[in-house]
Amino acid sequence: MLPAAPPPPAPGVSSSPPPPSVTPRGHLWLVPNTLDLGAAPQPLDAVLPTAVLQRAARLQHWLVEDAKTARAFLKRVHEMVPLQQPLQALSITELPRAAKGRPVAPAAARTGAMGGRGTPGEHGGARAGPAAQLLAPAVAGHDMGLLSEAGLPGVADPGAEMVAAAHALGLVVVPLPGASSLMLALAASGLHGQRFAFVGYLPQDAAARRTRIRELESRSRQAHETQIFIETPYRNGALLAAVLECAAPATQLAVSVGLTLPEGWSRTATIAEWRRSPPGGALSDRMPAVFLLQA
Amino acid sequence: MLPAAPPPPAPGVSSSPPPPSVTPRGHLWLVPNTLDLGAAPQPLDAVLPTAVLQRAARLQHWLVEDAKTARAFLKRVHEMVPLQQPLQALSITELPRAAKGRPVAPAAARTGAMGGRGTPGEHGGARAGPAAQLLAPAVAGHDMGLLSEAGLPGVADPGAEMVAAAHALGLVVVPLPGASSLMLALAASGLHGQRFAFVGYLPQDAAARRTRIRELESRSRQAHETQIFIETPYRNGALLAAVLECAAPATQLAVSVGLTLPEGWSRTATIAEWRRSPPGGALSDRMPAVFLLQA
Repeated sequence: MLPAAPPPPAPGVSSSPPPPSVTPRGHLWLVPNTLDLGAAPQPLDAVLPTAVLQRAARLQHWLVEDAKTARAFLKRVHEMVPLQQPLQALSITELPRAAKGRPVAPAAARTGAMGGRGTPGEHGGARAGPAAQLLAPAVAGHDMGLLSEAGLPGVADPGAEMVAAAHALGLVVVPLPGASSLMLALAASGLHGQRFAFVGYLPQDAAARRTRIRELESRSRQAHETQIFIETPYRNGALLAAVLECAAPATQLAVSVGLTLPEGWSRTATIAEWRRSPPGGALSDRMPAVFLLQA
Repeated sequence: MLPAAPPPPAPGVSSSPPPPSVTPRGHLWLVPNTLDLGAAPQPLDAVLPTAVLQRAARLQHWLVEDAKTARAFLKRVHEMVPLQQPLQALSITELPRAAKGRPVAPAAARTGAMGGRGTPGEHGGARAGPAAQLLAPAVAGHDMGLLSEAGLPGVADPGAEMVAAAHALGLVVVPLPGASSLMLALAASGLHGQRFAFVGYLPQDAAARRTRIRELESRSRQAHETQIFIETPYRNGALLAAVLECAAPATQLAVSVGLTLPEGWSRTATIAEWRRSPPGGALSDRMPAVFLLQA
């Protein structure tokens, strides 16, 4: 039950001390990761603000998408800001596996360890479930960090359910500033930035994908809304080919590959222009790409 | 005309030297601003990565939303990374005024200095228009920076048209990583992060706004898609009241106020819960807020 009081106190703001019988709760800090997925890592301060690294170095309880990459991330933090406790002493727990991986299609029910999402009335279910157990350190007063593989946790990756559970438990949730590939791609595209939709992945079936591309064109045209989608890197080329094949010649397509990386690039052109001068080589099958269209 | 060649060379990557008759072009660097709108500024490295500050310190040609706040920003950069040239020696040009201010409703034609956006076939118009003139330094080989008042340029603010013109002119566009209030709010909300739409501002007319809120609920329910919207700060309270009045009790509403600021906070609850325990004071009329809903 959320307190019937002013909004939860924010960090750094003094507020009335809690009643003696209530243990002050820890915060859930949403820690951004880089966009380099551990490949040819650059210095962390190329992408993450110093204050974020300082906060990360102080956190001793972590909820993460993948423990191995989380430890690699923390080693990189340590190179810039010494960890307050040695890495081995930290508590690093992986999110339940049902929450990971390629998201299910929206029409499918989302089940799994969290007991389903998106159904009215289930918000309360998070309070007593596995998420509450994972957040026990915060309830007991310890700050916790949430970290995903790339970018901001909970945006196009697992983590949202943990954040929802945190709210249900009355924890203070603080998102730390970091890079979002979707927003960097949108900014780099020059397409409408006042209205946009991120639609996740397109269907893998060729016919369903064609239909979906045309739906996105239609929606972008009617609502003046840029459509943003992504793909697993090794399918980047196939997706680009599909879009070039079936979208209208005047539709604008923007592609950003390897955002924030030295070898990254961004291009915006009409479908007709892309067809006339496609990328000289195959679209990278290892660097993440973001696709945006506007009809 | 874009070169019929591999994607434009990215910074830091060596590529074949251009033919002797072609002057190497400058890059258009999309420089993120803070989210503090100049009020009670924190150190820049709380929100911006060091490498971004270093890049900003080197840029001598700027296209900005507001020259005065841009100079204030550059003074803050200078405190952390000395500017390569004195502030007075920099070229700081404001974007044309028609591109600024509250965005027009999607159904209205977008006219103005840029000659309209969103109409097929007008992409080429940018090549010879005012944008091309503003980008002349880059065409002549000088790196340029694009800066808006808050967050990433071109996302929910002017700047997209300049980026579009840059692409049309064959310039390399590089988005630098920084904070996006929309993504921080989404991450902090715990709502669906796999599909979301940013719809900008809601209508000011009460009846139209009610209709729009119900449209957003309907869309979020059908598409399992979080709906994100914003308001001018002094209307924050009125918007919250309107949403609480007419949205369905089980709809989830998340509000983030003052993201990245010490006094900021984020809360997610059902409409019913918000009604039972509204914020203790009026919603801030000066700090930016982001609203998210999911029915």
